[in-house]
Amino acid sequence: MVIPRLIEHKRDGRALAPEQWASLIAEYVAGKVPDYQMSALLMAVYFRGLGPAELAALTDAMIASGDRLSFDGHPVPVADKHSTGGVGDKVSLLLAPMVASCGVAVPMMSGRGLGHTGGTLDKLESIPGFRTDLSLHQARAQIDRLGCAMLGQTPEIAPADKRLYALRDVTGTVESIPLIAASIMSKKLAEGLNGLVLDVKTGSGAFLTDQALAVELARTMIGLGEARGCPTVALLTAMDRPLGRACGNALEVEEAIEGLRGSGPADLMEVTYALAAEMLVLVGAAPDGAAARRALEESVASGRALETFAHVVEAQGGNPALVDDPAVLPQARAVEVYRADRSGVVERVQPRRIGRAIVELGGGRAAVEDAVDPTVGFVITVKPGDAVRAGEPIASVFARDAAGVALGISALGEAVTIGERGELTPLISQRITARGAEPFSGAD
Amino acid sequence: MVIPRLIEHKRDGRALAPEQWASLIAEYVAGKVPDYQMSALLMAVYFRGLGPAELAALTDAMIASGDRLSFDGHPVPVADKHSTGGVGDKVSLLLAPMVASCGVAVPMMSGRGLGHTGGTLDKLESIPGFRTDLSLHQARAQIDRLGCAMLGQTPEIAPADKRLYALRDVTGTVESIPLIAASIMSKKLAEGLNGLVLDVKTGSGAFLTDQALAVELARTMIGLGEARGCPTVALLTAMDRPLGRACGNALEVEEAIEGLRGSGPADLMEVTYALAAEMLVLVGAAPDGAAARRALEESVASGRALETFAHVVEAQGGNPALVDDPAVLPQARAVEVYRADRSGVVERVQPRRIGRAIVELGGGRAAVEDAVDPTVGFVITVKPGDAVRAGEPIASVFARDAAGVALGISALGEAVTIGERGELTPLISQRITARGAEPFSGAD
Repeated sequence: MVIPRLIEHKRDGRALAPEQWASLIAEYVAGKVPDYQMSALLMAVYFRGLGPAELAALTDAMIASGDRLSFDGHPVPVADKHSTGGVGDKVSLLLAPMVASCGVAVPMMSGRGLGHTGGTLDKLESIPGFRTDLSLHQARAQIDRLGCAMLGQTPEIAPADKRLYALRDVTGTVESIPLIAASIMSKKLAEGLNGLVLDVKTGSGAFLTDQALAVELARTMIGLGEARGCPTVALLTAMDRPLGRACGNALEVEEAIEGLRGSGPADLMEVTYALAAEMLVLVGAAPDGAAARRALEESVASGRALETFAHVVEAQGGNPALVDDPAVLPQARAVEVYRADRSGVVERVQPRRIGRAIVELGGGRAAVEDAVDPTVGFVITVKPGDAVRAGEPIASVFARDAAGVALGISALGEAVTIGERGELTPLISQRITARGAEPFSGAD
Repeated sequence: MVIPRLIEHKRDGRALAPEQWASLIAEYVAGKVPDYQMSALLMAVYFRGLGPAELAALTDAMIASGDRLSFDGHPVPVADKHSTGGVGDKVSLLLAPMVASCGVAVPMMSGRGLGHTGGTLDKLESIPGFRTDLSLHQARAQIDRLGCAMLGQTPEIAPADKRLYALRDVTGTVESIPLIAASIMSKKLAEGLNGLVLDVKTGSGAFLTDQALAVELARTMIGLGEARGCPTVALLTAMDRPLGRACGNALEVEEAIEGLRGSGPADLMEVTYALAAEMLVLVGAAPDGAAARRALEESVASGRALETFAHVVEAQGGNPALVDDPAVLPQARAVEVYRADRSGVVERVQPRRIGRAIVELGGGRAAVEDAVDPTVGFVITVKPGDAVRAGEPIASVFARDAAGVALGISALGEAVTIGERGELTPLISQRITARGAEPFSGAD
């Protein structure tokens, strides 16, 4: 295999053979293909795309580069969820214990926040003592015992993805639908799932702001999952405003616990129930969406979901008293209420501006190695379309000091605009399966 | 300057600022920009092209990466020629001493053969003892004394081009008009020329087989040269058949000497005179094309051009007796005549097949480090359109042994096709200047 000829082939719009992708990735991971050839190839893929057979071969090669979880013979089915990321998206924290409480194992492998979007790992690590660096072996043992583990990408899973992602990040080749799909699906498919649900965010605060691209990404990932024996469904959910009220690591953990108690914000609960219900139906743990929804509501009402969360926190080194006493979480030193500057209707609550402000407050990352302050962030109690009166409290800023408070208040002034009219776009706009896209009305 | 943002910028079809190109190339040569970022950027350039200001900035940055020859205050004007490469193209060997004999200094910096096309350096090195690795200082001193030096790209000239070309060669980014133009022109413009003539080959044996691309390359290089105070003219010449009769390193040197004696093949002499006349007119050494042509013919007829060539050979370590006794050149051990297999008209003499056969015979390179056998090659005495009789000798094979002869005979059978009709396309089809393209009728 002569690499420059392969690059030219792809550059000229022709497909590489599956075995070419396989040996290319194997040799790249073995250090036999230099980064400078891989980055040129990735840029050619950016422009030319990947055919279905190429994408499948690339994804398989990335999976084959590492270990995989196996749940063969496991007594219960196994499912997971992936979100393309947003602001205030703490769904995983509720969903994993809820689904596990309904008899479906959840090997929830998550990422860190980067850019304006938060990451589940950072949220979990705001719990003092909580460890996310489980080995595959430890995760597997915990799933056997509690039905759920919440961990970071282990070095054993898809190491090719880890290297490729790091290379893409510095060579302008991140924003490619097939490369994004292969990256996400290589990790998820290595988890040995019976079903996967994708939360594909759309709107100004999403990774892909263009709805057509979001749908294309969803379809691409569904195709990859289905072809590999992992039934996959996607919901397109709104990220033109934050999800729920809390935005910021510890604040979101607190809101997730409220949700597990049954008193979370309506939009957060709606998205969580919808995604979780898809998981139960996909793996046959519920006959239909309505039954799944009832089972999930029961897991919350009975306290079993909260109890599972407490067990997971304890198993991974955190203090389970957290679920009864939010003061276990680190608290911001400076808090200030933000009030509506005029009467009217909320036009926008811009998630990208809020996400950026969290980074500026020290609660997110500008670079991978940055430390994160778990205490900072916002609680925003209004949504687009809400009527407000001048002087009414509509948000709070949580910061390290007065300067942070000022920064946060200023960010809210930019992010939350009040005018004559505002409209709340549908929370869940589409449900996409292997059969196509349809307006959302709940799991089958 | 954040490199990934620059790459994304170019990837998305936007222009980088001149100062961004300048610092990018400077930092690349300084080892501060890794190859994997540069190769991704080059692939983005392949797809997006370069605007005129970007191309100028890139070329200037490549020139600025190294030293340049300066002929400020030199008593005679300075000119050079560049060919995009072909089969049987020994024009430089005749042209440089002819032009130097007419009072124009020629710092002829040439390349090696790669792929199916030959390289002037390899031809020169078939002369026993001939050294092409002159330093800039040595070259300059020889030009002052003899009016001409024939050397390889020195390490001092455009080192950025050397690194970029090596990277492009292994990352599928060679075939980009702006990158080709910047590579060629950065080296030529560093020679401190008063005029430059481009021999842009077209047809099946050319580097760019597509005539429209060849014209685009010519226009791009002319634009770069003119904007930098180096008047530049291009001739489009035929490479749908070999130039002259000899193809192969030592064989071509022998034919070049015949040409300098005034008895070279008509097509070789025509192309050489045309390019050389353009050089004389460009730098003001002749008032018009007709006068330039007369001066050049006189340099041949008087023996001055051949004498200059002998001086150059001697100055660069070779045996000047060569010009009177071709037996000084290494001789092939096995020679065989090839005869027409039928009566008819020569349809094609395919240069690409001939060039490949020379490589197969050991006379060219599959890889940069390959050694070259100077003795092997072909002398082909027919052109498309020539009538031939069955059994008539139309070519000779020069090889190392009987196996080579068989290989060469077989290659000739594929390259030379005889049928009912054949047509000789115009040898020089277009003359391109900063004012536009016109049918060729000689230098202004």
